[in-house]
Amino acid sequence: MADPTRIWTAALIVIGDEILSGRTQDKNISQIATWLNVQGIRLREVRVVADDSDAIVESVNILRARNDYLFTTGGIGPTHDDITVDAIAAALGLPVEVHPQARAMLAGYYETRGGLTEARLRMARVPAGASLIENRMSGAPGIRHGNIFIMAGVPHITAGMLDSLTGTLEGGLPLLSATIGCWVAESEIADLLGAAEQAHEGCQIGSYPFFREGRTGANFVVRSTDASALNQCLTALSTALEQGGWPVIPNGI
Amino acid sequence: MADPTRIWTAALIVIGDEILSGRTQDKNISQIATWLNVQGIRLREVRVVADDSDAIVESVNILRARNDYLFTTGGIGPTHDDITVDAIAAALGLPVEVHPQARAMLAGYYETRGGLTEARLRMARVPAGASLIENRMSGAPGIRHGNIFIMAGVPHITAGMLDSLTGTLEGGLPLLSATIGCWVAESEIADLLGAAEQAHEGCQIGSYPFFREGRTGANFVVRSTDASALNQCLTALSTALEQGGWPVIPNGI
Repeated sequence: MADPTRIWTAALIVIGDEILSGRTQDKNISQIATWLNVQGIRLREVRVVADDSDAIVESVNILRARNDYLFTTGGIGPTHDDITVDAIAAALGLPVEVHPQARAMLAGYYETRGGLTEARLRMARVPAGASLIENRMSGAPGIRHGNIFIMAGVPHITAGMLDSLTGTLEGGLPLLSATIGCWVAESEIADLLGAAEQAHEGCQIGSYPFFREGRTGANFVVRSTDASALNQCLTALSTALEQGGWPVIPNGI
Repeated sequence: MADPTRIWTAALIVIGDEILSGRTQDKNISQIATWLNVQGIRLREVRVVADDSDAIVESVNILRARNDYLFTTGGIGPTHDDITVDAIAAALGLPVEVHPQARAMLAGYYETRGGLTEARLRMARVPAGASLIENRMSGAPGIRHGNIFIMAGVPHITAGMLDSLTGTLEGGLPLLSATIGCWVAESEIADLLGAAEQAHEGCQIGSYPFFREGRTGANFVVRSTDASALNQCLTALSTALEQGGWPVIPNGI
């Protein structure tokens, strides 16, 4: 029987000069993190690297070794700055080959869109031995090789790929979370938060302050894989806040 | 005289379980990247790590050694999950001390807000020998130690800290960029893009496809530190696209 306390982890490498230049606001980190939680897998670390082979190779080899799964986003299109497949093949010490099924998919997709050019055929290239991840949005598939999942950079294409992977990866217990909010400076209730976390094993409490309409507030997120422990911690924390004179707003502010 | 070809680099560590859980959409990567560009500094790599001392220490020591500057965001508040200062002090092999000026600033800020409690005093703690970064938004300052800049996690507080650092860091030539767009599948003009980049030394061309209102398009971003080279590359690329039958939309779509 599977060990219910086993924590499954993933890492993500976001590949792209456009993120590092500030031009593009990344949306894949939160999208993939949220999806992984539902699969019972924790996103443990993320790296954003340039369109640079050495940087990709270094990150891939470190992160695939110390996580159950490694996801990458970006750099799998048809243009000269799309180097992800070559870099990951280099990291694995494998040649790049054209995947016959990917070639067939692209040929079908581009049949009414001007035909399969050499540039478009680049999107059928995979590290030798890879399988494909279905792309429900456009022609080019994602790629799986061992524990590495090579995804698109465009967020809605990535979303479609995640959708096709849903339920196919082994994971552990999903990390549950519950949020409450208070109009309070977190510095006023720091001790109370720390005490509540300490008193409830297996629960973590995060404190996320904000300033809105000239007022100071904070949301408190309790996380646990154990629903009962989570509820107990949430109740204890809510009670302590209410008793301190800070009305609690369910589900956060 | 300073070497105009010297490239100054920075790394960023985003610290926080809330980013890795998908709860919070990071905004500091693009904000800091954009600010660094104006200072003539390139953001070369980003890591997102958990509120975990070992993970912070590992990243800090690798990234501060191989970049001119290292920025961190998050984990400098008053609560139990704010461990950034302790972790960075550990990475540097230094004790943590209360900075007298930070203590005075916090005492002043909290004078009319309930006084300086022990939890609030946590925000005056710095790795020994650090200096402060002005916080124009709230009480707790940022921290500078050598080439490490420890910033807030809340984006508008980080923005204020960046503002107070503007013009104080040595950098090189700012990376200039110009964007054009076309209603074209990037796979149709992949060769043309690659050729334009190759023909213009010191220029990089990024291709960023999208799908809007059922149409396929792409923006092309030309980057260079040399304004003249950038303009020549942009003109050549625009001409090639127009001659290929794809009208160019200035400043992108």
